[in-house]
Amino acid sequence: MYIFCILNCQIKLIENPCVKILRWVLIYKKGYQSREETVQSSVITKLKGVVMTNNTESGPHLWGAEDYVIPPSGEQVFFIVTNYIETPNQRLGFCAEVSEKQYCGSFFFRTGVKTGVCLNSTGTCEIHGWCPVETGRKPLVALLSKAENFTIYIKNFIRFPKFEFSKSNILDTGNDSYLKRCSYDNVLHPYCPIFRLGDLVSRTGHNFQDMAVVGGSVGILIEWICDLDKDYSQCNPAYSFTRLDINLNSSVTSGYNFRYARYYKDETGNSYRTLYKVYGIRFDIMVNGRAGKFNIIPTVIAIGSGFAIMGMGKFACDMIFVYMLSTSSFYRDRKFEILK
Amino acid sequence: MYIFCILNCQIKLIENPCVKILRWVLIYKKGYQSREETVQSSVITKLKGVVMTNNTESGPHLWGAEDYVIPPSGEQVFFIVTNYIETPNQRLGFCAEVSEKQYCGSFFFRTGVKTGVCLNSTGTCEIHGWCPVETGRKPLVALLSKAENFTIYIKNFIRFPKFEFSKSNILDTGNDSYLKRCSYDNVLHPYCPIFRLGDLVSRTGHNFQDMAVVGGSVGILIEWICDLDKDYSQCNPAYSFTRLDINLNSSVTSGYNFRYARYYKDETGNSYRTLYKVYGIRFDIMVNGRAGKFNIIPTVIAIGSGFAIMGMGKFACDMIFVYMLSTSSFYRDRKFEILK
Amino acid sequence: MYIFCILNCQIKLIENPCVKILRWVLIYKKGYQSREETVQSSVITKLKGVVMTNNTESGPHLWGAEDYVIPPSGEQVFFIVTNYIETPNQRLGFCAEVSEKQYCGSFFFRTGVKTGVCLNSTGTCEIHGWCPVETGRKPLVALLSKAENFTIYIKNFIRFPKFEFSKSNILDTGNDSYLKRCSYDNVLHPYCPIFRLGDLVSRTGHNFQDMAVVGGSVGILIEWICDLDKDYSQCNPAYSFTRLDINLNSSVTSGYNFRYARYYKDETGNSYRTLYKVYGIRFDIMVNGRAGKFNIIPTVIAIGSGFAIMGMGKFACDMIFVYMLSTSSFYRDRKFEILK
Repeated sequence: MYIFCILNCQIKLIENPCVKILRWVLIYKKGYQSREETVQSSVITKLKGVVMTNNTESGPHLWGAEDYVIPPSGEQVFFIVTNYIETPNQRLGFCAEVSEKQYCGSFFFRTGVKTGVCLNSTGTCEIHGWCPVETGRKPLVALLSKAENFTIYIKNFIRFPKFEFSKSNILDTGNDSYLKRCSYDNVLHPYCPIFRLGDLVSRTGHNFQDMAVVGGSVGILIEWICDLDKDYSQCNPAYSFTRLDINLNSSVTSGYNFRYARYYKDETGNSYRTLYKVYGIRFDIMVNGRAGKFNIIPTVIAIGSGFAIMGMGKFACDMIFVYMLSTSSFYRDRKFEILK
Repeated sequence: MYIFCILNCQIKLIENPCVKILRWVLIYKKGYQSREETVQSSVITKLKGVVMTNNTESGPHLWGAEDYVIPPSGEQVFFIVTNYIETPNQRLGFCAEVSEKQYCGSFFFRTGVKTGVCLNSTGTCEIHGWCPVETGRKPLVALLSKAENFTIYIKNFIRFPKFEFSKSNILDTGNDSYLKRCSYDNVLHPYCPIFRLGDLVSRTGHNFQDMAVVGGSVGILIEWICDLDKDYSQCNPAYSFTRLDINLNSSVTSGYNFRYARYYKDETGNSYRTLYKVYGIRFDIMVNGRAGKFNIIPTVIAIGSGFAIMGMGKFACDMIFVYMLSTSSFYRDRKFEILK
Repeated sequence: MYIFCILNCQIKLIENPCVKILRWVLIYKKGYQSREETVQSSVITKLKGVVMTNNTESGPHLWGAEDYVIPPSGEQVFFIVTNYIETPNQRLGFCAEVSEKQYCGSFFFRTGVKTGVCLNSTGTCEIHGWCPVETGRKPLVALLSKAENFTIYIKNFIRFPKFEFSKSNILDTGNDSYLKRCSYDNVLHPYCPIFRLGDLVSRTGHNFQDMAVVGGSVGILIEWICDLDKDYSQCNPAYSFTRLDINLNSSVTSGYNFRYARYYKDETGNSYRTLYKVYGIRFDIMVNGRAGKFNIIPTVIAIGSGFAIMGMGKFACDMIFVYMLSTSSFYRDRKFEILK
């Protein structure tokens, strides 16, 4: 009876789970493959589209990619201007700070150095800085709202150094004009490397026009999960999109903006500048990849581990019978027979 | 007697260490949790503070964040100007190289192309380049020494995609003005996202004023180590600061500087420029994170591994008795009884 | 007979592979060491060299590091201009688009907004934008071909935080002038931190002059694989070079270019600009590192795992004899003796 118990236990504890674990390790987890988790990656981006803005304050402005992409050098992380406040013809001098009374006591002003004079005309402090100062008002509409029609062209080259495998996201379709005109769609055109800005933001679950007013941050993930035992054409990128600056704490204002200035000199050699406060969307392209390929060493280790777990099952059976069952003392006598 | 030996051995080798290892795996190493080591992160930085410099050579200069942060776009890696050498009104022409005799034979000059003429007046080679050339002297004092009062506001959004968990370092205190006015302190204000530049450098064990003269490189580490079985409010960032350019080899000069130029055109359309050699501190914000959450699969694997190690202990006991003890031949006879 | 079989099997399955596996784990895989796979790294780069270009269209140009390195701030990822197309004195206005008939139907022009007028003189559409527009021709020769003599000085500081170990690639040779004048060579000067641009590209298996015409992307890998049980001087960087934008799909044009503009204002306050389309090589410095140091915990675990695999061998022997050999039923009778 007990023999059958032990045999039954062993079969239940060993054969069934072992076969399952081995199958899981070998087939599902691809335990027979050598793996590469690090990927060498190079990303080049190119924006297309121009927008003409024309507001009463600063006159007509043409925004080309050389202006609205910051930096313009085709980086993996870049910022696209969707809104701006321009303060033209600032000169170093003395003028009134825009009223921000709560900051009046602070050592540093944002726009200049406090002279100690309080101007009665405005009720604010006088500063020594670039005058006139930028108005403190917040934007309500996006001046570059048409930026949603801009397109991002992403070139991504990857390499798995261990397997000497390299590929690009510009897939060989035998149709070049397709790759220049297509527009990414996760169902219809999953391998098209051109992304319309508005679509891209809406894929994160947000609205481009809302985001364009005060800016934000978007992550573009490119994943390369490749089984190199299969054909070269089976190793393809998968794109996903996520908004990175979602603030669950709604009380702190979200958005993305910064200032930059263009400096000029007049005929007398004096400097003046135009200050731009730009709002926009920062894109961060993140590339992940892992590849696997058949290799004898992990195969042997995987099978070996399977046997080790079998051994564990046998030991557990012994343990159960020796220490836990009611007949343990009897069984133990058999197991550890007295050595005379 | 031997039975007790074996039992004793098994208990010593198996029960005690096993319970310890299992406890260590399950409790200390949190073996019952599924883990996520990669974190998606977005960092936005904003500098505050202005400084007025006024040296005899270049006149008054106002340095705002749009000037002293390079690039000004709120990046994760940025440079803050703490010192500079200005060479205004350079024009393309012919002039004398500043004396650097040891480089006279080299093909390239730093500042222009050698014409082959040796100028008796200065004893140096004539170059074709931007004239007058920058003086070669090293700075002794930091012109933007007040930069130590600048503040860095760091917004860091993280996401553990596997657990669909996202959080920001701007913690929900229910007090917005606190988050705008506080100053980071590892004891009093460990979750304040505003860092005074001087404090930040002193936390690396260095002096801001010393570092400001010729520049350097500082790393700001943000670590998110989160047990997601606990409450949302228990997942908090930990900041640490380290100087990245410490050179144990004192003979090679440390520091961080580079040059950039602002280009102008005069009325006749000819170009001239102002060359800036800026010294400063590069900040590199590095975000690490790992999270764990209860999952049945790693729990089973952890317990299973514990049993496997128990099996190993039993085998070791057998080995010790069969191969190593003096009574081994006798015991071996018992173990492998003759099959008739 | 069977006893010898089992003993023989155990020796073959246990002793030999176990000793080999233990040796492999302990010596080759350094199983006795605690490991650190993440490295904190700081990279500072500095380019040297000037080039004078003089083409009929744009007159003489002096390219210093402040111009041809984009951004000029000594980053880990940077772009070096090797070729360019200059379009000087552009002003906002109306002019003819350069003939690109296939794009005539598209909503966005690259250079301006379509007015709807078709100009008979050129046969192309009229645009409202920066005029005159850039010519569409592709470059055939590299204007900065002498850039192959530029040198990159790479300062790399690394830190293994777990072991509190830090080192720089500027090795202590006791000879400073060597570190300022040397030129990297993988055999003669493997630790020299100065790289000639032309050599660096040729080490990737490509030709600098070919690459300079339309640009490309090059990765510089710095690997720190350190056994910290050895002397401090044994932890050294290893450099390797790879072209990152190799396109196996030859039909899609490779290369690297982008546009930027320099803005000016005339005496009347009107803006004009010079547009540069620059071609060049992007360098991406990637730092990897791992370190190991003796630690008692991994040593115990490694030896323990060895024993576990031994136990697996014993179990496999039992399995073979019980389930697979022809005498299995007989042997099984012995193994599981009837408990009365």
